[in-house]
Order: sequence, then structure tokens, then C-alpha cells
Amino acid sequence: MQHGLTPFFAPRGVAIIGASATPNKLSYGILRNMTLYGFQGQIAPVNPKADQILGLTCYPDITSVPDPLDLAVIVLPAPAIPATLEACGQRGIRAVIIISGGFKEVGEEGAALEKQILEIAARYQMRLIGPNCVGTLDLYSGLNTTFIQGVPEKGGIGFISQSGAVGGGVVDYIRNKYIGFANFASLGNEADITETDVIEYLRQDEHTRVIAVYVEMIRDGQRFIQVARQTTPHKPIVLLKAGRTSAGARAVSSHTGSLAGSHAAYRAAFLQAGVIEAETVTDLFDISMALAHQPLPQGNRVAIITNAGGPAALLSDSLAEHGLQIADLEEQTRSALRGRLNPAAQVSNPIDMLGGAEPPEYEFALQQALADPNVDVAVVILVPQALVNPLEVAEKIVQVAAAHTKPVLTCFMGEWSVEKARQHLHSHGIPMYVFPEIPGRVLGAMLQYARWLNQPPYETVPLHGIDRNAAAQILAQAADQTALGEAQTRPLFEAYGIPLVAGEAAHSPQQAAEAARRLGFPVALKIISADILHKSDVGGIRLNLNDPQSVETAYQDMFSSIAARLPQARLEGVLVERMAEKGQEVIIGMRRDPNFGPLMMFGLGGIYVELFGDVSFRVAPLSRRDALEMIQQTHAGKLLSGFRGAEPGDLQAVVDVILRLSQLALDFPQIAEMEINPLRVFPHGVLALDGRIILS
Amino acid sequence: MQHGLTPFFAPRGVAIIGASATPNKLSYGILRNMTLYGFQGQIAPVNPKADQILGLTCYPDITSVPDPLDLAVIVLPAPAIPATLEACGQRGIRAVIIISGGFKEVGEEGAALEKQILEIAARYQMRLIGPNCVGTLDLYSGLNTTFIQGVPEKGGIGFISQSGAVGGGVVDYIRNKYIGFANFASLGNEADITETDVIEYLRQDEHTRVIAVYVEMIRDGQRFIQVARQTTPHKPIVLLKAGRTSAGARAVSSHTGSLAGSHAAYRAAFLQAGVIEAETVTDLFDISMALAHQPLPQGNRVAIITNAGGPAALLSDSLAEHGLQIADLEEQTRSALRGRLNPAAQVSNPIDMLGGAEPPEYEFALQQALADPNVDVAVVILVPQALVNPLEVAEKIVQVAAAHTKPVLTCFMGEWSVEKARQHLHSHGIPMYVFPEIPGRVLGAMLQYARWLNQPPYETVPLHGIDRNAAAQILAQAADQTALGEAQTRPLFEAYGIPLVAGEAAHSPQQAAEAARRLGFPVALKIISADILHKSDVGGIRLNLNDPQSVETAYQDMFSSIAARLPQARLEGVLVERMAEKGQEVIIGMRRDPNFGPLMMFGLGGIYVELFGDVSFRVAPLSRRDALEMIQQTHAGKLLSGFRGAEPGDLQAVVDVILRLSQLALDFPQIAEMEINPLRVFPHGVLALDGRIILS
Repeated sequence: MQHGLTPFFAPRGVAIIGASATPNKLSYGILRNMTLYGFQGQIAPVNPKADQILGLTCYPDITSVPDPLDLAVIVLPAPAIPATLEACGQRGIRAVIIISGGFKEVGEEGAALEKQILEIAARYQMRLIGPNCVGTLDLYSGLNTTFIQGVPEKGGIGFISQSGAVGGGVVDYIRNKYIGFANFASLGNEADITETDVIEYLRQDEHTRVIAVYVEMIRDGQRFIQVARQTTPHKPIVLLKAGRTSAGARAVSSHTGSLAGSHAAYRAAFLQAGVIEAETVTDLFDISMALAHQPLPQGNRVAIITNAGGPAALLSDSLAEHGLQIADLEEQTRSALRGRLNPAAQVSNPIDMLGGAEPPEYEFALQQALADPNVDVAVVILVPQALVNPLEVAEKIVQVAAAHTKPVLTCFMGEWSVEKARQHLHSHGIPMYVFPEIPGRVLGAMLQYARWLNQPPYETVPLHGIDRNAAAQILAQAADQTALGEAQTRPLFEAYGIPLVAGEAAHSPQQAAEAARRLGFPVALKIISADILHKSDVGGIRLNLNDPQSVETAYQDMFSSIAARLPQARLEGVLVERMAEKGQEVIIGMRRDPNFGPLMMFGLGGIYVELFGDVSFRVAPLSRRDALEMIQQTHAGKLLSGFRGAEPGDLQAVVDVILRLSQLALDFPQIAEMEINPLRVFPHGVLALDGRIILS
Repeated sequence: MQHGLTPFFAPRGVAIIGASATPNKLSYGILRNMTLYGFQGQIAPVNPKADQILGLTCYPDITSVPDPLDLAVIVLPAPAIPATLEACGQRGIRAVIIISGGFKEVGEEGAALEKQILEIAARYQMRLIGPNCVGTLDLYSGLNTTFIQGVPEKGGIGFISQSGAVGGGVVDYIRNKYIGFANFASLGNEADITETDVIEYLRQDEHTRVIAVYVEMIRDGQRFIQVARQTTPHKPIVLLKAGRTSAGARAVSSHTGSLAGSHAAYRAAFLQAGVIEAETVTDLFDISMALAHQPLPQGNRVAIITNAGGPAALLSDSLAEHGLQIADLEEQTRSALRGRLNPAAQVSNPIDMLGGAEPPEYEFALQQALADPNVDVAVVILVPQALVNPLEVAEKIVQVAAAHTKPVLTCFMGEWSVEKARQHLHSHGIPMYVFPEIPGRVLGAMLQYARWLNQPPYETVPLHGIDRNAAAQILAQAADQTALGEAQTRPLFEAYGIPLVAGEAAHSPQQAAEAARRLGFPVALKIISADILHKSDVGGIRLNLNDPQSVETAYQDMFSSIAARLPQARLEGVLVERMAEKGQEVIIGMRRDPNFGPLMMFGLGGIYVELFGDVSFRVAPLSRRDALEMIQQTHAGKLLSGFRGAEPGDLQAVVDVILRLSQLALDFPQIAEMEINPLRVFPHGVLALDGRIILS
């Protein structure tokens, strides 16, 4: 079955509404691009003032355009668009690209207009790309609804960009470099179709082998995760997110009027869905190019074949920094190399054939390296030498790589003298990078994706012993509060099966002493007061009380000293808790992200979490593996795993608390923030020692 | 006075010894390059088999070449070189470049040959570049002793490369990009002239405005620091070091046969000498280009002028990641922009003029931004648009920038349609980067250099109360040991004025109890034994002993339990030490680096130093400021400075211990490693609680 977005990339006929006959207008540029790249369907300019443009019959309105007609591209001033869209709907068109700006991005009035066109589209079950975008192009159907000059070569990258400018700049940079694209979609304001929709389309597009994405904001984070998680087992997604820092996020939101959310949520979502995060625009295409056309590495052992030592050293640094290692070549390989290369050549890895290396030596060395069972990947480096023809070396590399199933990347360090070599390599699917640091970074990303593919699929976790009704009741009673202290979070956590340190509320010194007797000594007392969130700041915690008399005295002291400091505070009583045994302390928290929903946090307790920023994040819901990886990603995780001979903590019990807390967050959207701090971890089991909740 | 290295860049006459008449030989390439770039001095090919090459008179030997003759370039097989060098010496030549390989890099025999040519050079007071290099070029004298095809434009970058290949690759990449070079030197094996020598030369070269360096190893680290520290106040040094990781270091050493040393030492040396460390080859030239031709920023507030929001967001991220901020424009500036730009334009920073922005709008916005007192730097972004001519925008930028003294960088995102704009910008000293992340990184480096220039100069620290003779005596007595335990390090540290916890050695339970009485309770006992370095591992430490009886008992227990566990260990007695008050614990250490000498280490005590790798390094000798920065660079430094309301520690006392320990390391080269662990830090003063030394 045809995907609903197919008309945006391979329609049977396209109308360009507002096509101008004046060559310096954008709409003329679009029409011209439609005619340049072999599009086989109908191309129908719509303009009441012309009969023909570029030799194409021009129609006065959309109604008069004959079949077949699947797609309308609108390039009219914003105020004229609602009526035009109505006409498209009546004509039966179900796919419309609105190039024009003047909508949400220009303020309130534009936002109202955008809402209006969305309503019209919904009425006719039309899908929209844009407004405020530069259109789509498809290298296989020949469709080009953009006004960008030139197109990339045909290849395997499907590129989705929220920014038309970034898309245009990339195309301008990439043309003539033979980096092959399957298609490109610029999405602009994303009034209807979002990056997630196009990812879903490209998942099943036969020509797209890797999905490259530039985004400034992902509005429906949960759906993105779901769609990405269904896509990455089939083809990789490489994504660049602008607005990683608060300065960047401000720039994004001043530009699109959107709330970008926190990058911690994005980063977590990418990890959980197997999305490779690019760091820069170049990074995005360096990685995509390799994933589109090279097999994945089966391991991390790299052979380097080079005619110069310096670049090999730079590459070695970069490989090490990205989790790869220099392969130990078999003695057989080394002796074969020794027999054939310059006697002064270095035959252990890196294989340095020295400056005079000719194409046949490259051929031989690459063959040997790829045949070595200790090698998972080969990177070939060439530094231009006066007497060696880079194109001939490229030809040998293409031949040898085609006879093997291991990935081959290259670094030809230069530009002027390696252009033909690049063309040959790229048009045969072998990435050529100019500088030796790049292949290390690219291989790191390929390895990350290969490992992702080997993971078992995402599994939801059934949690037992959860009393959702009890929790709902507690939260309903607290509906007018903004924050819940420990005395209120205890029953809530209890309802979700989170282990708590043994404790009871008491409302007099005598009750406290009796509670302590029941719980067993030593105990701690903690003040209960809706007016006090930070108990320790006001002397509201007493620890290590060993007998009933100390409990009574501590109760009285605490009440009188707090009353003296905070005469307004209503003091309801104390929590009496049995002192827990020693153990490593961690924090588990949740903050609700505007785009992704509950964002879970795990980190080391005490002052070190702040000093070292040692925390990790995941978006709920989490699988058991997500939660475990979240712990292992931190230094706190190393401590819990028995760092330096310490007794390991009960990781599975921590995982269980993370999952239960995330379920609580998913079940009750009114919880804005939540924290168990500290959770004490023992060799067997864990105990929550304190908690708080902020309601929205 | 002329610098001794001038003949390598601007000689009055050059002989090419071994110049071939065959066009596909490297030596022919060199001769041809000598004739291509306007060199005004004599060019004399030396080859007994030819009368003329390329129309130049050819001489049978070096003796017959007439004056003027300052430089010989030798391109002969390695075994022929000693005799040729002798002849050069006799001819009175004092500058020789040996292009040929076949020396240290090919093994022992080559190393012997290299030693031989060094001896010949010394005898004639000749200076050598190479062997195994690609020569030098100077864009101002027109000298070109390389066989690289093409040269960069004339400009301000002086480029030193230990690797000829990296140099050649860079030149190949950079030609036609109008990135201006003053000169280039490839140094090969550095048998005589090193990167440090050339830095010293370029410091006084009038055309060189920034020194860009690629190194694999710096052999004389102390001299490098000294020379770099004298250079950076006059012109910046930007340096890329290969072999940062152990894989990279192995690749370097297999290639050059050198011991690369630890990157911690390099990194520290660069910090101490104001050298900007580049991360990649592109980074090296991105930064150098800006430093060569743009003024330094006087602050970190950046104005962004753009025709597209996405790239501005990516730039904003990059700026934030490199310590810059988005300037708050004055209301006056914003209102001027509002009056002139597209009504839908964004006039707060980033100034987003939207896709239709024409050259006059770029001109106006840049003028306004540079005139704003809240702006220190402007970055102009252009994404190619069908109707805007990038060259015209470039022309406006050049005009406006010339009328202001603030730095201006640009990002023109593309390649195909922005080539002319790049040429215009670069030939007027304004860097153009293709992708928006780069200017952020470059400005970070410029800011780092501007701050370095504002620091007071390096000052040596006079240390009082050091008894070097006493230390020498202790070390002489220990000359046959490989390690010194606490009992031996105490008097050594004492001689260097390092505060020690009060303590005495005791050799019986009774002596220990008496010592404890003198010192005051509570005390600790620590075993003294040359056979035990890790006292706590064998139960050799007892803490918190409160009375003489406990001391005697602890002494006896300790001896009998250690004797049972380690019957062979010779137990000499115990150190009795008064228990110190509580305080933050840190480590101060020293490891001798093969290239840089004593490398000082500072870090947090306890398991956290290992868990978080929270340590910093500096090369001795240190200034007081170096030591303070070394502390502040770590998270431990934040703790000592009073993190989260904790009482601050005595930073100056820690600085003093670092300086005294580094003096001890400088004075006694037989100390291979040294550690005070822990040093306990109080609000006033510090105490060394334990120490050990490894001798070489």
C-alpha cells in the first residue's frame, strides 16, 4: 500500500500555484527546478496572468488543471492561502506544500492564519508540509519543489530539515562532492507534517538507507521515540539538534516561537530509540554518508593503511577517543606485507607504506588487511605525493572493497589534487574524508549503531503490587497543595511498592517515644510541616536517638527551636523513622519535560552530585535495560557495582525503584517534579529515606 | 641582527644538490618550485650529469657554485650525504636542508648515519633542517624548497610541521581558499633544528602573525616552555599534537622512533606557556586564520547577524559551549534595526533579517551591531538564497569591518555559490567558515589568547626555609633503595619546609607510649618497614588511640599480626603521630616526564580522585599563579574554595606545598615519583599526613 506521504515525493502530477513567469522570482525557480531533474509526471503552473511558462501550459486556477494531480505547491502571499487551500480541497488534492512564510513565525496574527489553514486541511483530509519551508525533492522520481540551485547526486541519504536554510546550505555545500541523497524535505513551521511523520515515511522508502535529520524542536516526544524505535532496527537515524545549550534554545525559540524543552530529554530519547546524535552539520553528513553505503563493522578493530605517519597518528588518537582500537595483525599478514612493501615500511598496524607507495601497493595492503581475521574495518589514508595519482589509488580501493564485506573508509588529505579520487570513491559508496580525525568519529557512530542492532528489542515492564487507586486518593486530597513533604510522599511511594525506611507519624513527645519503641532503636525524628520543605535547614531532623527519653527530649527541643525561628510555621508533628544501616546513597528524581513528558534522573547522593554533575536521564516509560544503563552511565553506577573492592549494591532493586517512580509519573500528570533523596542502597535491597513532590 | 635561521627562509642563493633533469623526479619538482614563486636570489642546481636544467646553469659540485650561496638543499640517497655535507661545510655553507629519508626513521643503521651527519654539521657550525622532510617555503621571499604542487596565498600564518605529509596535505587543501601563509617549514626527523628553534625564528619574523604548529613529539620540553612563553606575548602559537591517546602515541613512536611522553605533560605545558591547543587539523587553521588577521575580542559578548534562524541557533550553542555569550543589544540599536529591516525580522540578538535580506541590510545591521557598546564581536551568517548575491554581501562586510576595531567572523553556509565571497573575505582578512559551529570554537580560542595577554608575566617564586643539603644527605643515605616510606619522606619534606603532622619514630611499645604523651592524644600508629609500602593493606595503621595503654597494646597487636601475615617483612618500629583535625583531603604528586621533567599533580583525596579522574597537572617550575590555577581547575578546588557553604580551605598553604614539592623534584633528578597523600587542608594551614617517594 502506498504511504500517505508518497505524493510529497513521487506524485503523478504537481501544480505550482503562484508560478511566476519572471525569472528572478522564487516561484519561477521552483518551476524551473521541476523541469530539470527528469520528473515524469504532469507539471502544471497555475497563474491567471500567463498562458505558458517555460514551455508548460499554464492554468488560471487549480480547478482547471487536468488529472493526474496529487500535489499542490503554493507560493502565494499568506493572506491568499486559505481560499487557495479550499480550492485545492475541492479539487480533490490531498497533499499540499506551502512555501510561503507569514504564519506562526511572525507573531499572533500569523499564528491565527496558521490555525485557519490547519482547519481547512483537516476538513478535506489534506496533509500539509510547511508553511514557511523550501519544499521537497526526490532524486529518484525527479521531483524538485524547491528553489535551491543544484541538487546532490543520487544516493541513499534521506534528509529531513526543519530549517529550509540549513537544508539549502547543505545542498549548496554537498553538490559536486558526490554525496548521494535519496530525497530531502524541508518542513518549516510543521503546522501538520512533522519530522516524525517523514521518518515514518522514509522507513519504508526503498531508496532511503539512512535518515539524516536536522531539528530545532520535537513537539511530540513520546511519538518520536515510538516511531524512531520502530525505525532504527531497519535503517539508522542520524540527528542534529539545535538548541542544546540555553543560549541555543533561546535562539531557536525566538526564531520559531517554540518551547524547545531541555536537551537532557532529547539526549535521553535519542539513546533510548537508538538515534545517533550528530554534533555539527558536517558530522551529520560525515556519518550519514558512511551508514548509507558501507556495511556495519562487526567489531572495533581497525587496520590503518597509509603513505604517511602523521595522519595515521591523528587517526589513531581519534579512533581511541571513539572506542575503537588498532587491530593486532596476524603474523601471516605482516609477513605478506613485509614481502611486498618497501623494506623500510612499517608492517605492523598502522601499515605505513611510506611516501612512495603506488596504487598496486595500496591494493595489496588493503587486500591483506581485509583478509585478516583480526580486522573489522579498514581505513585507507593517502596524502598527495607528487608522483602518485590519487585517482588510481581510489580505483584500487573500490575494487578491493567490493570483494570484501568489511567496511572501508578513506582519508585523502587535500582537495585540489584529490577531487577526482573523491568523485570515484563517493560514486562507489566509499566515504572519503579530508582530515584524519573524521573516520574515527564516523566509525564510533557506526559501532554505536551496530551495537544497538544487536540489543534485544524494547520490552515494557510489568510492575506488581501497585495500588493506583490509593495513590489517586492521596493526590486528590492534596489537590490544593503545590508541594508534598515526606509525610505525604511516604504513603504515595508505598502505594507504588517503593521500599521505605520503617517509620510512623507522631503528634506528641509521648507518641513519638511509643512509635520509636515499636520501630526499634536507634531512630530519627523529622518535622512534619506543610510550611517547611527543607527540614534540615531549620533543625527539623534529629538522628541517632537511642532511647525513649532522648526521643521525647528531641521532640520538645525541635518544636521549641523551630517555633522560635519560624513562628508562622504550622508544626503538625514528627515522622519517627528507624535509622537505616550504612550504604551508598543515590538520588532518583523526575521532572516533567514539555515535549517528552516524565524525564527520570539518577545520580550520586550528597554534595558530589552537584560538584561533579554526575547524573543521567531517561524518558519514561523505561525498559529494565534502559534503567540499568541509566545507572551504569554514571560514576555512581561504578560505585554501586563495587568500585575498588567495595561491596556491590543491589542494582536490580535500584532499577525497580526507577521503574516504579516512572510509573507513578506516567499515571499522574499533575506531578511536575518528584525526588527520592536519598535512596540508600544495600548489598540486598534499598530504602527510600526521604522524598518530595511538586505538583503543577 | 639577522637570525641564524634566516637562510632557511630568505637566502641570497640556494643550491639544489641532486637536482634531476627528469620531470617525474622529486628533485626536479623542487627545482621547478624554486623558479615559480618569484624567488630573487641565485638558484643553482648541482648535478654532474647536466649542464642546464629548466634553463638554469647546472654545476658539477657544490664547490663550483659561485656566491651568493646561503642554503643547500640535498636530495641524494642517504649514504651519499655525509660526503656532500662535508663539501658544503668546506664551501662555507651554514644552512642545509636534507630532504632525503633513510635515517633514524628506518632503524639503527639510519640512526648511526644521522648521528654522523650531526657531527659533521657541528664541526662546521652548520644548521640542519631534516633529514626526511619536505623542506621550507616562504611566501614573501618566494623561496620554495618543497616538491608540493601549488602554494597557499600570501598572508600571516607561519606553519611548522614535524610531518611533511601533514604539511603537504594542508597546502593541497588550502590552496584556492585564500587562507594566507607567511611561510612553512617541514622538519622531519629534527636531527638539529626543532620546532622550538623555528618558533624562536618566527617570533621575530615580520610577516608571521600567528605560528601554527603540528608536532608529534617535543623533545626538550623545558626549552619549549621557555621559548613559547617568550613568544606568546608577541604573537599567538596554535598547536596540534598527535599522540594524545596511547594508541596515537604508539602510532607516533612506531613512525618516528620517539618516546612521545604523556599528553598530560604537553597539555600542562601549553597552558603554562599560553599555547592554544588545536584538536584537529581543521581546527588548527580555522583558529590560526582568525588570529592572523582579526583583532582580539575585548570581551565575550557576541552579536549574530543572519538571514536564517537555524544556523544562528547552531552558532549560539557553539558560542555557549566555548564561554561566549549572546550580547544584549542596546535599545537604541534594536530600534534602529526595527526601523530599517523587514518588519518580521528579529531585532534582538541573534539579528535574524530573514531570507530576503539584501547586501544593504547586512551592511546596516553589521554597522549597528559593531557600534553597540554591549558588543565585543560580530559573526555574520549567510545562507545562500536564490536572489541574494553572496559576493555583494561579502563586499559590504569587508567595508564595514574595516571601519571598526572589533573582530568580525563569518559563516557562509555552502560552497558552490559562496566561492567568490570566500575569496573576497579571505583576501581582506575576514575568516569565512562553512558551518556555523566553527566561529564559536574559534572565538573561544581568541578569547583564551586575549585573556592570556592580560595576565601578568611569569614570575619565579623565591622559597624560604629550604635546607637543600639536609635533603641531599637523606637521599644519599637512601641511594640504594627504590622507594622511601613515610618515615624517610618526613625528614625530606621537613627540609623543604612542608608542614607535617606532629610525629616521632618509636621502636618499642614503651617508646611509642612516651612519644604519644609528648605529642598529645589521640594519636595514630603507623608501621615502619622498608618491605611495606601500602601500610593500610597489611593492618599497619591504627587510628584514634586515646591513652598510653591503648598505644602499647596497639603496637604489640600490630607487630604480631603483621609478623603472622608477612613473616619475611623487617619491622623497624612505628611512627607515632598526633591525630589531625578534620579537614578536606587532597593529593599532591609528582611524576617525572621523559620530555618535560617534573610533572606536578593535584587532586581530590580518597576514592573520588580515581572515580572521577579529578586531577590537574603542571610542569615544574611553577609560578604561584600556575599552582593556584592548577587547584582551581579541579572540582577539589571548588570544594576548597567553599562549595555549598562549606568553610574554605587555606588555598595559599596548598599552593606553598605544591611549590616546595616541585622545588624538591627540580633539585633532585633521582626522584622519579613523589606523593603527599593525603594533605589535609584546614581553614588555616595544611598538614601532610603521609608521603612516599620512588627513586630511579
